[in-house]
Amino acid sequence: MKTDKKTDISSLGEFGLIKHLTENIKLENSSSVKGVGDDCAVLDYPDKHVLVTSDILMEGIHFDLTYCPLKHLGYKAAMVNFSDVYAMNGTPRQLVVNIAVDRRFSVEDIETIYDGIRLACEHHHVDIVGGDTSSSLTGLVISPTCIGEGEQGKIVYRSGAKDTDLICVSGNLGAAYMGLQLLEQEKAVFNQQQKEGKKNLSFQPDFAGKEYILERQLKPEARRDIIEALKKADILPTAMMDISDGLSSELMHICDSSKTGCLVYEERLPLDYQTATMAEHLNMNVSTCALNGGEDYELLFTVDLADYDKVKNLEDVHIIGRITKAELGCQLETRDGQDFELKAQGWNPLR
Amino acid sequence: MKTDKKTDISSLGEFGLIKHLTENIKLENSSSVKGVGDDCAVLDYPDKHVLVTSDILMEGIHFDLTYCPLKHLGYKAAMVNFSDVYAMNGTPRQLVVNIAVDRRFSVEDIETIYDGIRLACEHHHVDIVGGDTSSSLTGLVISPTCIGEGEQGKIVYRSGAKDTDLICVSGNLGAAYMGLQLLEQEKAVFNQQQKEGKKNLSFQPDFAGKEYILERQLKPEARRDIIEALKKADILPTAMMDISDGLSSELMHICDSSKTGCLVYEERLPLDYQTATMAEHLNMNVSTCALNGGEDYELLFTVDLADYDKVKNLEDVHIIGRITKAELGCQLETRDGQDFELKAQGWNPLR
Repeated sequence: MKTDKKTDISSLGEFGLIKHLTENIKLENSSSVKGVGDDCAVLDYPDKHVLVTSDILMEGIHFDLTYCPLKHLGYKAAMVNFSDVYAMNGTPRQLVVNIAVDRRFSVEDIETIYDGIRLACEHHHVDIVGGDTSSSLTGLVISPTCIGEGEQGKIVYRSGAKDTDLICVSGNLGAAYMGLQLLEQEKAVFNQQQKEGKKNLSFQPDFAGKEYILERQLKPEARRDIIEALKKADILPTAMMDISDGLSSELMHICDSSKTGCLVYEERLPLDYQTATMAEHLNMNVSTCALNGGEDYELLFTVDLADYDKVKNLEDVHIIGRITKAELGCQLETRDGQDFELKAQGWNPLR
Repeated sequence: MKTDKKTDISSLGEFGLIKHLTENIKLENSSSVKGVGDDCAVLDYPDKHVLVTSDILMEGIHFDLTYCPLKHLGYKAAMVNFSDVYAMNGTPRQLVVNIAVDRRFSVEDIETIYDGIRLACEHHHVDIVGGDTSSSLTGLVISPTCIGEGEQGKIVYRSGAKDTDLICVSGNLGAAYMGLQLLEQEKAVFNQQQKEGKKNLSFQPDFAGKEYILERQLKPEARRDIIEALKKADILPTAMMDISDGLSSELMHICDSSKTGCLVYEERLPLDYQTATMAEHLNMNVSTCALNGGEDYELLFTVDLADYDKVKNLEDVHIIGRITKAELGCQLETRDGQDFELKAQGWNPLR
């Protein structure tokens, strides 16, 4: 699939480029009345609430092109926005993507980013309905905005958790963070070799047995399946968020918005084998990785205690603790029965 | 109003900063169900179509902080998005703003940008309902997304112009471009003085008599008044766009989408006195400035010939030509009666 063809972006111009990137887009959703090609996209949401979420992803801050392939980057940029819509118990329907590129990038490079975005959209039945393309003096910027729908009365906010609710997470935690550590480690090795003047350099490290944590970092999947499973099981969470900045940080947001405390059991934190192995290799505490590692894009939600029987058998959903009264604060009970206050050491894009 | 206080952004962190910037926001519109503070904003548009437009503004490409004050920049970033919604015959209702800043910027700087955004929102009754804030390795990035409403059946696309329709523009053309030329000229003088090692430098040039073109460049106004006047006069344009890249470029978009040609009369191009004076000073053809100068954010629209009596008396609206059959192409008739093919020499952000 790799091509050496490098078409200069200025040969197409802004309108030519947008036309080129979007000409084969077919709209899938009935809510997409008019997509790319006018001053605005036109949408129709007569019976639903409209959900809107937006991100800005900066090269050197949110991603490193040394090890993040452009197609994966496009895929991830779309996916993290879909994840925010699912986290409201909604369904993503439309995506608008703004991209700015500097002179390093060719038309084919932008096509590759778009390929990733389109693949994510296909998987989640989302229509690309607009976007701005610009040049940048330095660095790549991707700013996606996702529009989705939620049923009135079934939208789940951060603020609805109540004392005695169960705290649940999907999947497992800390894997994306361990994937990032692995990539950073290999980059450091590569840079060191380069510094020492070694010849025949190639960034082709051996990732055997570590594919899962790499994929969690490079190609996260928004958990539509969990939203569907909750609906099928007739469970409406009382509060929900997606885990982008780390479990501790998100839990504290829920408790802050809901005016509650929480108690999480360390032994209940769901971990993958590769995450644990990598943490051990790096001499890191795996629970700390699970609590504070970002970019898992799993769902964190709370359910009424009365839903225990329904939720306990859900596949890939784990009950990790319970909501408590606000005055008890946010606590972690360790494997040896000690209680510690949870701290949000999540990733901060404003470093 | 100026303060020398410079608070480091990292002292607040991402969530602290967003909270700080958005804490006093009151939602004005009934369609804004839930604003800042969850994974998504929640909107309600039961009886209207939803309009969505988005931009990405890059430092060094779209703006130059040497002469563009931060408050004006915020105001303009919001305004150009509102303009896109009006250009669909819609009403802007919500705004989401993503901002990325590098280490040069303090909390107070971002507040100043937000002040400008909020002022624009107040003038147009738009609610700020979300946004992402991040750091950048180099340069300021602003990516606003505006959501608005349009009445079903009354949304005006680019594609509806028909042969014999009248072509109209609001306001006057080329002023923002002349304002930019003036600022660039003064910047060059300043840089030259600096190069020559002059002391007591200050970027305080004399702009007396040129305030209007400066304001058109630094503080453009979206033409809600024209949309309201058209409604009051019971005129539904057949096609409409806002003029961001220059009249020629936009007219060619309308003709391309509508599969028509057009004929524009040079003598009908509306010009301001300051625009003409500045063009003469720079030895530029003022018609070329009016045809190709960008960032006017005036409205370009076509109306049925039968609406001539209604449209001719509208304040600040000018009939500049008519739509023709596609095979006649896009033509300009000069003052001396010669026809030339229109060319889009509009501003290109992908330089």
